[in-house]
Amino acid sequence: MKAVSIKEIFKNSQDYIEKEIAVQGWIKTVRDSNKFAFIELNDGTFFKNIQIVLESNKVENFKEIVKYPISTAIRVVGKLVTAQGAKQDFEVNAINVELLAPSTVDYPLQKKRHSFEYLRTMAHLRPRTNTFSAVFRIRSLAAFAIHKFFQEKNFVYVHAPIITASDAEGAGEMFQVTTLDMNNLPKNDNEVDFGKDFFGKKTNLTVSGQLEAEIYALAFQNVYTFGPTFRAENSNTARHAAEFWMIEPEMAFADINDNMNVAEEMVKYIINYCLENAKEEMEFFNSFIDKGLFDRLNNIVNSNFERITYTKAIELLEESGQKFDYPVKWGIDLQTEHERYITEKIFKKPVFVTDYPQEIKAFYMRRNDDGKTVAAMDLLVPGVGEIIGGSQREERLDVLEQRIKENNLDLETYWWYLELRKYGGVKHSGYGLGFERMIMYLTGMSNIRDVIAFPRTVGNAEF
Amino acid sequence: MKAVSIKEIFKNSQDYIEKEIAVQGWIKTVRDSNKFAFIELNDGTFFKNIQIVLESNKVENFKEIVKYPISTAIRVVGKLVTAQGAKQDFEVNAINVELLAPSTVDYPLQKKRHSFEYLRTMAHLRPRTNTFSAVFRIRSLAAFAIHKFFQEKNFVYVHAPIITASDAEGAGEMFQVTTLDMNNLPKNDNEVDFGKDFFGKKTNLTVSGQLEAEIYALAFQNVYTFGPTFRAENSNTARHAAEFWMIEPEMAFADINDNMNVAEEMVKYIINYCLENAKEEMEFFNSFIDKGLFDRLNNIVNSNFERITYTKAIELLEESGQKFDYPVKWGIDLQTEHERYITEKIFKKPVFVTDYPQEIKAFYMRRNDDGKTVAAMDLLVPGVGEIIGGSQREERLDVLEQRIKENNLDLETYWWYLELRKYGGVKHSGYGLGFERMIMYLTGMSNIRDVIAFPRTVGNAEF
Repeated sequence: MKAVSIKEIFKNSQDYIEKEIAVQGWIKTVRDSNKFAFIELNDGTFFKNIQIVLESNKVENFKEIVKYPISTAIRVVGKLVTAQGAKQDFEVNAINVELLAPSTVDYPLQKKRHSFEYLRTMAHLRPRTNTFSAVFRIRSLAAFAIHKFFQEKNFVYVHAPIITASDAEGAGEMFQVTTLDMNNLPKNDNEVDFGKDFFGKKTNLTVSGQLEAEIYALAFQNVYTFGPTFRAENSNTARHAAEFWMIEPEMAFADINDNMNVAEEMVKYIINYCLENAKEEMEFFNSFIDKGLFDRLNNIVNSNFERITYTKAIELLEESGQKFDYPVKWGIDLQTEHERYITEKIFKKPVFVTDYPQEIKAFYMRRNDDGKTVAAMDLLVPGVGEIIGGSQREERLDVLEQRIKENNLDLETYWWYLELRKYGGVKHSGYGLGFERMIMYLTGMSNIRDVIAFPRTVGNAEF
Repeated sequence: MKAVSIKEIFKNSQDYIEKEIAVQGWIKTVRDSNKFAFIELNDGTFFKNIQIVLESNKVENFKEIVKYPISTAIRVVGKLVTAQGAKQDFEVNAINVELLAPSTVDYPLQKKRHSFEYLRTMAHLRPRTNTFSAVFRIRSLAAFAIHKFFQEKNFVYVHAPIITASDAEGAGEMFQVTTLDMNNLPKNDNEVDFGKDFFGKKTNLTVSGQLEAEIYALAFQNVYTFGPTFRAENSNTARHAAEFWMIEPEMAFADINDNMNVAEEMVKYIINYCLENAKEEMEFFNSFIDKGLFDRLNNIVNSNFERITYTKAIELLEESGQKFDYPVKWGIDLQTEHERYITEKIFKKPVFVTDYPQEIKAFYMRRNDDGKTVAAMDLLVPGVGEIIGGSQREERLDVLEQRIKENNLDLETYWWYLELRKYGGVKHSGYGLGFERMIMYLTGMSNIRDVIAFPRTVGNAEF
């Protein structure tokens, strides 16, 4: 008999009720008395477990089975019946139980609660726990929602290069990539001779695929990247990882308002997709991880995001009378405390802040007519602060060249980026969404290490 | 007036015919006489161009417009009308043409044909050509088809780590990742002190996410990875890139036959998805890149893939009387010439070859009862040879330990991989599909550099 998945049973229980079925999975808990035993079984297809009921005088090897340690894999043939006053509507009355793969009593994740810190050292087992099962299913669904959203809009998915010889933002500390024998480096005038390296030059891991996405937007109009990016920042916070995934849409014939429209629609789409397709997981997060989660997410889905300029934001902060650790004045980069105050206290909903001073933003953002601000847009959300950063791009060749020089960057390096402005370089806009920040936001998980399967941070590259 | 996308016009022309519309895009060609001019306009949303007809006495600036160089961006307001005996069913009679962004007469991709080699040096402009526009739209659609296929089957998408301290296959030349200053390396006993590196140890770019996928399969049952992988092989072939994307499904409670079933279904799904969702692009490939393409793809979609053992394959090759450069005998690794002979000459359809000698396969493949073969499966397809490699995994702790030792690998490194076998380590199987190989197969493109937006190969990391 072919095993039925537990998801299938939960979704279409009426098709199986009063029928003999086979299920297979891993034991989550066993409770037993002399006469009865109850096994919570999970097969990985669904967040919830199915309950298996064993009667001692009906099931062979009853005494062995009730001693199976957690995580033992079994196959059960039994009848699906309506449950008597249990949490679930149905359960399986076991006829036969077969051992598929044993576990041991020293299985590290016993029933008692473990701290997230401890579970990080068990990255090979933690997806078997409720919390991480929920996190990583949400992560998978959110990733698919993003693809679906953009594909339905006819955006072309571009794989930006991971290894690159250029530094997209002229900032950011980077990881170097090499095949040179570091114990025996080829030298030239006492300097390492990168001409002998694999690519014939010094290369790094990408910090952003945006510049390459612009290439493709100027061919396909609407494109997006979705891939890993890297920052070698020596910061040990709950929000920074050295390796993370980023989504970077880029749209030609689009200005900063079009950009905000797409970003707003996307955020709502991802949230709705997860609420609809992972009800059980989302309820778990709302009950056990972040009691305000549903309120917060529903608020986002049902709001029209506010849109204000940076200048207005500074005014509002100054007028607020609120004391901040980092004093507010025009020209400063907004800190998380400011961002959260704006979105949580002033507007109580997501806020796009636009038109930042050009000094605090990247060279490629389009300079506004006032000569001092650029067409940047950051999306601030309650509970987190900035979740999306983007801009209209500088499409004017002369202005772009000037901005590159002002930033002390090398014009030569950007030859192809500049050429895009020579051959039909229409206005275009784009933004970046840090995927892990979005997952943290969706789940209420507060440490980025707990939404990445195998997190890479300073001093940690396990598994 | 909001511009209508060219895709929308082609898909629903009846909604726009005889109506005034706005379109915007880049000029592909201009043909003109004194009285009329014809502009082929493309906005990136669709493979085909729309034809704009300009009458000299109706359109202002007619004389300027007809001199616009290729890749100039314009906005056209005009009436969509039924075309008179043209290739297309409709065209736009221009009323007004507005310059959005100029191009220049030295635009590098003039109308004449360019070699693919030349276009590789123009990676920032080549997506604007017919061939690369088709390639990269197919690439996007195929990527989405893969996600859709697995998500519909309730597989969980896992992001395997890119930076890793372990070598999944115990083989493969790897790129090293470091933040150490290579001109000033910290030393310890004359050796580089990687304890001072970012992660506190030596790290590399991943060659495969399989081992990590196994972790997740033993929690979620069915999972897949889809991410970049890296090989620092010094090989300058048309089929090897240093950076490429790989799909690695992994399924618990699944043996090698289940594995083959999913692989076969997936390949057919991807092909059908592209044939249905990119008709114009696929017709282009069939007409201009590979005249046998449709025959080949239809053959795959309509075949039941053959399944034979390696031992049988060797017998058939020996019996064939065919002379091979690399002599055939039991124990050899199959070369492309052998693989292609099997799939193209003997079976004339895709063939799974299973149960290879354990000496030529990786340590983690499940040893068969004969003690000399392993439950490996490679999928061979006409025109290419191997496109998928996979296996049932060794789930028996004692056998796996023995295989690791036999391969002179370090047991300690695999502690977590071995633990998976201790705690409910059910049978499981998986495979890897090289994404670029699949794209080459789908399009008939013969060089991997032409299906990667910004290819990385020995000596090349441009853009």
